[in-house]
Parts: sequence; structure tokens; C-alpha cells
Amino acid sequence: MATPLTLYYAAGTCAQAVLIALHEAGAQFTLKTLSFADNQQRSPEYLAINPKGRVPALVTERGVLTEVPALLLYVAQTHPQANLAPLHDPFALAQLQEFNAYLASTVHIAHAHRPRASRWADDEAAQAGMRAKVPQNMRDCFAVIEQHYLGDKTWVMGEQFTVADGYLYTVAGWLQGDGVDIAEFPRVAAHFERVKARASVRKLG
Amino acid sequence: MATPLTLYYAAGTCAQAVLIALHEAGAQFTLKTLSFADNQQRSPEYLAINPKGRVPALVTERGVLTEVPALLLYVAQTHPQANLAPLHDPFALAQLQEFNAYLASTVHIAHAHRPRASRWADDEAAQAGMRAKVPQNMRDCFAVIEQHYLGDKTWVMGEQFTVADGYLYTVAGWLQGDGVDIAEFPRVAAHFERVKARASVRKLG
Ligand SMILES: N[C@@H](CCC(=O)N[C@@H](CS)C(=O)NCC(=O)O)C(=O)O
Ligand SMILES: N[C@@H](CCC(=O)N[C@@H](CS)C(=O)NCC(=O)O)C(=O)O
Repeated sequence: MATPLTLYYAAGTCAQAVLIALHEAGAQFTLKTLSFADNQQRSPEYLAINPKGRVPALVTERGVLTEVPALLLYVAQTHPQANLAPLHDPFALAQLQEFNAYLASTVHIAHAHRPRASRWADDEAAQAGMRAKVPQNMRDCFAVIEQHYLGDKTWVMGEQFTVADGYLYTVAGWLQGDGVDIAEFPRVAAHFERVKARASVRKLG
Repeated sequence: MATPLTLYYAAGTCAQAVLIALHEAGAQFTLKTLSFADNQQRSPEYLAINPKGRVPALVTERGVLTEVPALLLYVAQTHPQANLAPLHDPFALAQLQEFNAYLASTVHIAHAHRPRASRWADDEAAQAGMRAKVPQNMRDCFAVIEQHYLGDKTWVMGEQFTVADGYLYTVAGWLQGDGVDIAEFPRVAAHFERVKARASVRKLG
């Protein structure tokens, strides 16, 4: 049987958020893992799939989709029985999209200035200046998540696990490499353990 | 009559994308303009509304929403008669969200390294290094938009104007300040003129 979905992935990257969502959804899919060490994300074959040269990319029957927040919404909408997003409440859905957009456009970017500083300046001294500020920026972002977004809720959206939880787990997984102890953010740390214990995440191996 | 929505805004910023969407939707709303020159986005009053200290923020009956892609989806979903998003087609909606996520997490960020370099490094030399790379990064992003996303379509999503078009118009409006001539991207330039001619955009004054 032809599987309808193929996820292009690399371990430890933001694509993990989409992999968790697919597992939670019980989706049928093929996983293709790229080696960043070999720069496979910039190979002509992969650029034909995603000209932006990044993961994740999800190949569907109707074409290729990219960008984590869009893929998370797509997985939730196409697997409604899994209850991975408040699909019938525009305000709650906007809250979910707000959180995912914050991760994608602010927190992921704060982190990326360590491994990918060369995106934003050519000289090595400028790149070192960016790397130096990563711990502070990640701390600022996670203070917002801890106090403003997570609070005392079990999951990002409250009682219901959604695609946002696997995304937060993925981004929180970068803190250690960024020189920040997750224990500084007790609610984020407890959320991290809750997500880690789920069957979908144990499948990541 | 109490108006149900209040948009916190600053001229020339990404909040313009939401203002265009509200005009296109025929929504009732109050506009509150912050002065960045006076740092009003960091005032205690505004931080109580949006602790992230950024615009846009949309105050609704149920609470505050932030992040452009989330607000655009919310405006489209709560004003379905305006047809501002393919609400009943998960694949097309994911394409729209993909485009908006790309603008928010890559193109907006490429631009922000000019006015807001201090977010990502403290020393002035590093900030100068970032500013120097902005024109090249904006060119790379707009090449992707020109060839991959816009192609020969009238609007980002094809025949139908959506919230993505006002967002692209807003971000393309930053090119000149970033040292890039929009004429390098003829399809983007033609799209810019089409959006500019709309009643919703003429209202911006
Ligand atoms: N805005 C994109 C970002 C994607 C992205 O930056 N992916 C990283 C991994 S976390 C990547 O593929 N980097 C490879 C590279 O820069 O060469 C999204 O949210 O999907
Ligand atoms: N990811 C946010 C970004 C919001 C943002 O950066 N807004 C800018 C204006 S374009 C801002 O308020 N800057 C004020 C500041 O940095 O002090 C979104 O898409 O809404």
C-alpha cells in the first residue's frame, strides 16, 4: 500500500515536533532522515522538494508542505479523531497558532544564532557576538513561556495535549546545548518530563 | 456600542498586515497606535497587554491574541464571508499558513537584523556585521517568494485574495529601507501594486 505522507527529517531539529504530531495522530507515513553532517539538506535532490533547504518538509498527495506551524495544523486538521488542536473554536485555535508562531519566529530564532550565526553575518567576530547572547535570549524566551504561556496548566492549551506540546518539548530540548539549565524553569521542566513519557516520544528512540 | 476588537499597532510594522486584514474583513475595531520613538511598546501599560513588548496585539472579548500568522487566521475565521482564507480545505489552508510562517520566521527576521540587531548581539561591531548582510538575506528570501511562492499567480493563493497578500505587501514594503530595489523581483513588484490599489490599503493613508 502506498503511504500517503513522507516526512523529511533530521534528528534533534524542529522537524521532531512534526514527527511527534504524526505519531500522536496515528498517521501512516514514511520517514526520510537527512544527514546535516553531509549537508544533504542542500543537495539538488532535496532542494527539488524544498527549495529553502531546510527540514521539515512533508510530502502529501497534493504536494509538499513546509514550516513547522503549518505542518502541525495540517496534521491536526487531517487527523481530527486525535484531538491535537481545538479545531472548532477560532479563539482557542488562534491561541495555539500564537504559541506555535512564537516558538517558530522568536524562540527557534534565538536558538539558531548559536549553530547558524553565519546566516546573519559573514565575519567570525560578529558570529561570536551572536553566540554569546544566545543563553540570555533563550532565558528571556523561556521566562515568557514559563509565566505567560504555560503557567500552572498541564499542557500548553490546558487539559488537552495538542501539537504545541511536542513543539515546546522539541525547543526546550535545545536549552542544554544553549547553556541554559531547564531547571531554571520548573514548569517547563515538568512539562518536558510529561511529554517525554508519552508513547509518541518514546517511539523516537 | 462597544467595539469587540482593539488592534495595537505601529505604522510601518508587521501589524499593518493585521490592519489590512481587518479592513478587508469589514470588521469593527478600535485602532490604538503606539509610538516606538517613545518606546510605548515597553511601557508597563502595554506590557500588561502583551508581555512580549511587540505589536501587533489584538484584544478580543475572550482575551488578547498576538503573532501575525495567528491573528491573520483569526480574522479570516471570524469573518468567513470575506473569504480571506481557504477555511474548508486543510491542504490549501496549510499552504497559506506555510507562506505566513515563512514571512514571520524567516523574512521578517532577515529584515529585523537591520533595525533590531541589538536583539542578537551586544557589541556594536557584531551589530554592524548583521546589518551588512541584510540586503543579501532579503534578496535570497524574495527570490524564493518570486520563484517558488508567487510565480505567475495574481495573489499568493491564486485567484483569491487572502490575508497572505496584505502580509506580503507589508514585508515587501521594507525592501527599500533594507537597500533592495523591489524592481529586482518583477512579480513581487506587480503584486505590491495590485495590493496597494485595494480599498483596504488606500484606507491606511
Ligand atoms: N521556519 C522553519 C525553520 C526550519 C529550519 O530552520 N530548520 C532547520 C533545523 S531546526 C534546518 O533545516 N536547518 C538546516 C540548515 O540551515 O542548513 C520552520 O519552522 O519549519
Ligand atoms: N513574531 C511577531 C513579531 C512581532 C514584532 O517583532 N513586531 C515588531 C514590529 S514589526 C515590534 O513590535 N518591535 C518592537 C520592539 O522590538 O521593540 C509577530 O509576527 O507578530
